[in-house]
Amino acid sequence: MLSILDLRARISAGSLTPAGAIDLCREAIAARDPGIGAFVALDPDPAIPQEGPLSGIAVGIKDIIDTATLPTQLGSTIYEGWRPRADAAVVARLKERGAVALAKTTTTAFASSDPTETRNPHDPGHTPGGSSAGSAAAVGAGMLPLALGTQTAGSVIRPASYCGCAAIKPSFRLIPTVGVKTFSWALDTVGLFAAGVGDLAFALAAITGRDGIDIGAAAGPRIAVVRQDFAEAPEPAAEAALARARTAAERAGARLTDLTLPQELAEAWERHRFIQDFEGRQALGWEYRHHRDALPPLVRGVLDGGDAIAPAAYDDARRHAHRARRVLKDLFGEVDAILTFSAPGPAPETLASTGDPRFNRLWTLMGVPCVNVPVPGDGLPVGVQVIGRFGGDGQALAVARSIEGALRG
Amino acid sequence: MLSILDLRARISAGSLTPAGAIDLCREAIAARDPGIGAFVALDPDPAIPQEGPLSGIAVGIKDIIDTATLPTQLGSTIYEGWRPRADAAVVARLKERGAVALAKTTTTAFASSDPTETRNPHDPGHTPGGSSAGSAAAVGAGMLPLALGTQTAGSVIRPASYCGCAAIKPSFRLIPTVGVKTFSWALDTVGLFAAGVGDLAFALAAITGRDGIDIGAAAGPRIAVVRQDFAEAPEPAAEAALARARTAAERAGARLTDLTLPQELAEAWERHRFIQDFEGRQALGWEYRHHRDALPPLVRGVLDGGDAIAPAAYDDARRHAHRARRVLKDLFGEVDAILTFSAPGPAPETLASTGDPRFNRLWTLMGVPCVNVPVPGDGLPVGVQVIGRFGGDGQALAVARSIEGALRG
Repeated sequence: MLSILDLRARISAGSLTPAGAIDLCREAIAARDPGIGAFVALDPDPAIPQEGPLSGIAVGIKDIIDTATLPTQLGSTIYEGWRPRADAAVVARLKERGAVALAKTTTTAFASSDPTETRNPHDPGHTPGGSSAGSAAAVGAGMLPLALGTQTAGSVIRPASYCGCAAIKPSFRLIPTVGVKTFSWALDTVGLFAAGVGDLAFALAAITGRDGIDIGAAAGPRIAVVRQDFAEAPEPAAEAALARARTAAERAGARLTDLTLPQELAEAWERHRFIQDFEGRQALGWEYRHHRDALPPLVRGVLDGGDAIAPAAYDDARRHAHRARRVLKDLFGEVDAILTFSAPGPAPETLASTGDPRFNRLWTLMGVPCVNVPVPGDGLPVGVQVIGRFGGDGQALAVARSIEGALRG
Repeated sequence: MLSILDLRARISAGSLTPAGAIDLCREAIAARDPGIGAFVALDPDPAIPQEGPLSGIAVGIKDIIDTATLPTQLGSTIYEGWRPRADAAVVARLKERGAVALAKTTTTAFASSDPTETRNPHDPGHTPGGSSAGSAAAVGAGMLPLALGTQTAGSVIRPASYCGCAAIKPSFRLIPTVGVKTFSWALDTVGLFAAGVGDLAFALAAITGRDGIDIGAAAGPRIAVVRQDFAEAPEPAAEAALARARTAAERAGARLTDLTLPQELAEAWERHRFIQDFEGRQALGWEYRHHRDALPPLVRGVLDGGDAIAPAAYDDARRHAHRARRVLKDLFGEVDAILTFSAPGPAPETLASTGDPRFNRLWTLMGVPCVNVPVPGDGLPVGVQVIGRFGGDGQALAVARSIEGALRG
């Protein structure tokens, strides 16, 4: 994979120019993308800033995120050829920091579940996951050092796990969603894909202007291993990855305990979809009213379902989520991080499904930072998920980095 | 003014058609708008639904809210001629319920503070307030029965007070902001202007599908009169309006007490601008980076200020707001509503300022429902503000309605 930290070191040392770093990406895309299909648009001649912490870093932007210089088509024929006026806030910020918006990456329609044509870079018969399919595949295949995704259920962490790259879904609204097509305003979260956890920390610090994110300490952290027993059990490969990550964390000096989550969290998890689908039906009200027949079947079904959710069920789900956030906050008084599954297993052998977000939904609803750490192994990639307290993105990244280091060492 | 309930009664009785009700608005606009300037676009031939609780109701839509059928120019030359692809969620919902998106109304640039050319319908030498200038003026002048605004500091309640119409800033995100240009994602709230409180309750229930909003009971409510002493004292006209509203509420059977707000609320009030301006700088990142010179001076100054706010100051403000929301929630265990100033006085005699939101900022930050009730009097309009607990929009409207009735009776 292309590492941000590596590219930046070479640029700082003078052995690579920002334009040269962008060319590396173009060459990788030319070589690898024909078998993957991660992109819907490439900028043939982008401005390449010479300054800034992210100069020379080419970014892939999920195609539900507005760009003024490239079309934004939301994975849907309804938006064919659509050109927003402005860049989304996160895109504007990336450019301010020197990055290049080189490409738009494939997304399922409106970031829901209808698969794209993108293939898993590790095996073309398998899904790359979704909804941030192209972003995960582009980074996992070594075509880009950084990509933006969004997560409403499990659309960042799951595809990262499937494609073998690192990713973070930061604390809710740490990265603004302004200019990002809304599905659920209470859940949608912009996330990052990169080669390693250090790359994520560097990029997130640069985007947010919060230097502390990149210097979080994790000496002897208390880590709770959580199985999320309320969800159907995972496959053996996910179990094995969690066991390996646990051993690695212990080797890195962490104190590990097993934790069964309080009932309030299971109750919130069960209600995630009421919030997602009720809000989705409203957020996509124009599309549902005027272009329902042009919606692909899975998202159409979700919106039909959302149409049938009563406000009282939505309010009840929000109350449960609010209660669960308080319980989780107290829990983070006793542990520094949670370690759990990123996905039920490796990428399923199908292009007809984007996989199952059951181990991701709760954490999106809680708004807490989640990091996918790839776990080296023999078969298709599988990752584990390191979760921190709300606002503790730096610490979550530090714990994830120590586990990543111990897994590699 | 044109009343939604009155128009709907005439349509139900068969004495007016939906198209006839729209024509009444067109005639009023032709007669009155030349001296006011509330509109930036009118639809000459809109679809007019025959069914739905809002059929025959023409709506004015603040021009930071996306419409697929009319330009959306955000009060800024940067968006001259801009046409969004989709309707904002609230516009789609209004149309589903039978309403007609007849007009776009003037807004200060990006809903900040640079005045529009709109004049107060009660005296053309006075501001209509802002940022929802055109929406407040259109309803206050009797040109439309319903209009949409947004409030980030005081942009719904204040112009309603100045223009003499009823308005509600509902609980945070009760109406989705999807498709509304963001200034501050933690604050921006879509609100409604209408002739009377009953009209607001009917429209809000129709838009949200929450029938309970229109049947809130308010028998003998406990009302706390709050002066917001942390803000500079209001003018005598605002004091007089509050006193009259208090007397009216007592006459209507309410139990009134005086309340000095806990210190936590004053501390949150002081920090509102850190959240607004820090987020504004990010939300308008593209405009600030590429079109700074095209921004009018007040919003440019706000964004310059936002650029200098450190993440730590923003985080501190959010913590204070979070704490204040809990204090306020407890306070609403003891009272049913708060009664306070809507604005420091009548509309200032100037077109160079939109007035002062100092009595509105706290309540936007708290996310609680606020209703402006016009107080009949001799001079220019002045209103009072009725505030309810989060999610208690129906009760806030019921209390406001009882005060409105007692003031008229």
